[in-house]
Amino acid sequence: MNWRRHTDYRVYLVTDRELCLGRPLEDIVLAAVRGGAGAVQLREKHASSREFLELARALVSRIQPLGIPLIINDRADIALASGAAGLHVGQSDLPPEDARRLMGPDAIIGLSVETMEELKEAEAYDIDYVGLSPIFATPTKTDTHTPWGLEGLRLARRTSPLKLVAIGGIHRQNAAAVVEAGAHSLAVVSEICSAENPEEATRKLLAAFEGSGRRA
Amino acid sequence: MNWRRHTDYRVYLVTDRELCLGRPLEDIVLAAVRGGAGAVQLREKHASSREFLELARALVSRIQPLGIPLIINDRADIALASGAAGLHVGQSDLPPEDARRLMGPDAIIGLSVETMEELKEAEAYDIDYVGLSPIFATPTKTDTHTPWGLEGLRLARRTSPLKLVAIGGIHRQNAAAVVEAGAHSLAVVSEICSAENPEEATRKLLAAFEGSGRRA
Repeated sequence: MNWRRHTDYRVYLVTDRELCLGRPLEDIVLAAVRGGAGAVQLREKHASSREFLELARALVSRIQPLGIPLIINDRADIALASGAAGLHVGQSDLPPEDARRLMGPDAIIGLSVETMEELKEAEAYDIDYVGLSPIFATPTKTDTHTPWGLEGLRLARRTSPLKLVAIGGIHRQNAAAVVEAGAHSLAVVSEICSAENPEEATRKLLAAFEGSGRRA
Repeated sequence: MNWRRHTDYRVYLVTDRELCLGRPLEDIVLAAVRGGAGAVQLREKHASSREFLELARALVSRIQPLGIPLIINDRADIALASGAAGLHVGQSDLPPEDARRLMGPDAIIGLSVETMEELKEAEAYDIDYVGLSPIFATPTKTDTHTPWGLEGLRLARRTSPLKLVAIGGIHRQNAAAVVEAGAHSLAVVSEICSAENPEEATRKLLAAFEGSGRRA
């Protein structure tokens, strides 16, 4: 499986166990996959390394045989030990060059960018996508930069050759506008994790790509 | 350099930047090395991955050319990216088998054990030492098990073939008793990090091995 070539990023689930309303994370992830999510990022900021690894292994074994990559947030060691397909790093995480060196040439590497300057710098790296963060203000992450907004996203799309994953404040009502503004991918946390029906929530997001002719 | 064979663990500095009384960590580490510390563990529970990596790289470049291994706490990715000689894991960190697989056959791997049962289990792993934690109650770590005490350390020494690194509440006044009870190594945090003279503090700890005939 060449994850770097064949991943469908259109709906990209980023996990947050605290937002799953008490339901097991694995159930939410599998529902999202049934609904059409093509990539899943496991984000764990408070788990011990051992717990993080166990979660990663469980998800790898459930989704990667279905052709859906698990992408680990920040921790290359957890990604390597679990056999995850990729690693997502932020500007305060491992530098992308180090991430690539550790993960090897076949892994998916994603990088968060919060400014046009970071977006420009990202072109120098061997990465698979940039996460434009945040598109809209969101209560999930409070330590973020000024939102890109739809205008910022349009500008990013006009000026950058990179695959653009839009994240932050995206939901079914604004999804089509985000796609129209140039996003190759809609990454969401609460829109799926906290949805009454995560499978349906995923399907609604995926529908934003209908008629756009876009298969990211 | 074969770190696994040639490391002198008698005085093993474990870092805590918050206990350095405002002095740069690098200065404390270099003073400890001048005083005779043979191994240094970098422990960072609050730094970002990028900051952790930068610190690790700075220390690797300063101490490893002197024959002193830098051992990274918990984060195998930081150890690998920085070129550190080893990794120390606790019971909630990467399992020792995974740590060894990621770090390779030549890296130092250490494991914390808090009970006789964990000490016994540790014999199954390809590790270089166990950290008996804590020997005495200590304000530095509050989430720990019942202290081993000198009696527990004596029992550990009689029953285990492993190299025993004693950690927790060790200082110049009790160091000789800890060595006498069977420790191959004295690991300390505040005794060096918070010492007025970290070099001299290290030398005093090393003196606990005089006459013991022990070169760990």
